Amino acid sequence: MLSIGKNAVRELLDSDKKINKLYVLKGAHDLDKIVEGARSKGARVEFSDKKVLDKLAGGLRHQGVIAETSDFEYCTLDDILLTAKNRGEKAFILLLDGIEDPHNLGSILRVAECAGVHGVVIPARRSASVNETVIRISAGAANHVAVAKVGNINDAIRKLKDEFVNVCCADMGGESIYDAHFDEDTAIVIGSEGFGVKELTAKLCDKTVAIPQRGKVNSLNASVACGIICYEVVRQRYNK
Amino acid sequence: MLSIGKNAVRELLDSDKKINKLYVLKGAHDLDKIVEGARSKGARVEFSDKKVLDKLAGGLRHQGVIAETSDFEYCTLDDILLTAKNRGEKAFILLLDGIEDPHNLGSILRVAECAGVHGVVIPARRSASVNETVIRISAGAANHVAVAKVGNINDAIRKLKDEFVNVCCADMGGESIYDAHFDEDTAIVIGSEGFGVKELTAKLCDKTVAIPQRGKVNSLNASVACGIICYEVVRQRYNK
Repeated sequence: MLSIGKNAVRELLDSDKKINKLYVLKGAHDLDKIVEGARSKGARVEFSDKKVLDKLAGGLRHQGVIAETSDFEYCTLDDILLTAKNRGEKAFILLLDGIEDPHNLGSILRVAECAGVHGVVIPARRSASVNETVIRISAGAANHVAVAKVGNINDAIRKLKDEFVNVCCADMGGESIYDAHFDEDTAIVIGSEGFGVKELTAKLCDKTVAIPQRGKVNSLNASVACGIICYEVVRQRYNK
Repeated sequence: MLSIGKNAVRELLDSDKKINKLYVLKGAHDLDKIVEGARSKGARVEFSDKKVLDKLAGGLRHQGVIAETSDFEYCTLDDILLTAKNRGEKAFILLLDGIEDPHNLGSILRVAECAGVHGVVIPARRSASVNETVIRISAGAANHVAVAKVGNINDAIRKLKDEFVNVCCADMGGESIYDAHFDEDTAIVIGSEGFGVKELTAKLCDKTVAIPQRGKVNSLNASVACGIICYEVVRQRYNK
């Protein structure tokens, strides 16, 4: 698993993840701090030609630095619930129903990290996984957010309801997010762009919440919508 | 100027913009409604080979349909202020300080449209312009949002302050957006990714507002940040 580019590698250095190897562009002057940080974490540092870095990056902008770690470690849904409990906070969980675009997944993980979400749940199939692109787009936030990969989103919703978590489906036509109450244990289901949340999945949820639309187009990008909803949760919980 | 793909063309049909020509993939079955709509708007329709559409789209996903219009028509800052006045609403304006990535500009225009922003101000230099990519990413929202291109963002801020518009710089370290009051005439200055709002520009603003950060990475994508702030304005004005 590779973290590509300065921001992604810096965030990796700040996390508790182990770096196996750091590839650094030969002769680069602005990467000393990163090299030092990686060495102090026990990483092997290899000074490489641009060609080597370009090949590893596979077209992504590497800015002269790539870190190699073990594969992304997914957690379980129980881990996420436990994190909330241990922090003494009401659960705040995102479930992604078929976000297939790695850019959107990366951007959503960035939102999740900034908003203090306890964990993100993705399905094993028909979803982007946490790969190099996702980590890069997340500006490294992926290294700080717990992600659970589950066989079936619907089963995850059933389990959350058993645990008394209020599961809200984000979709048009629901109650305004400004009228909804997010001060209890809450999970938000975000659907894919274009298709929204699947019908069966939406039916399983406790309710549907919507972002009020004041224009004609009425469709926000999935990560922007996710940001607006997550920050309404933050506002209600911490900025009364 | 081209609008590429179904969503972008549909939004164009819904707008009051004139379509000069519609390119449609020969033999496509799902585009009848679009063809009909374009014809009733007086557009010339040309059924073309995939090769022609691919070339026009220049790598963007065209889904078999591309519309050709006159170049994007920018408005003036006065037009934007007048729109707010005519609607009897407090002004709600976005100023973009150096958003160079067309994806971000497109996504911000989508936010602006959904949140009912009266207009978006971009500088003539060091900024993405409203081109085909921007319109496509905006899912056509660009056809419904007034965009003013100005020589200098700082002059625009001075003018807005003369008109008693409250100009807020969005940046780290400011007052929480949840403590700020957006019920007066308001303009929000959004900085570029990576660099934020330029120092001189930030100093000109009436105040700085920030999105509270609950994580470690503390950096949201420009369009996501813009969405969160715009919707706090919407909440304060319309969902008390």
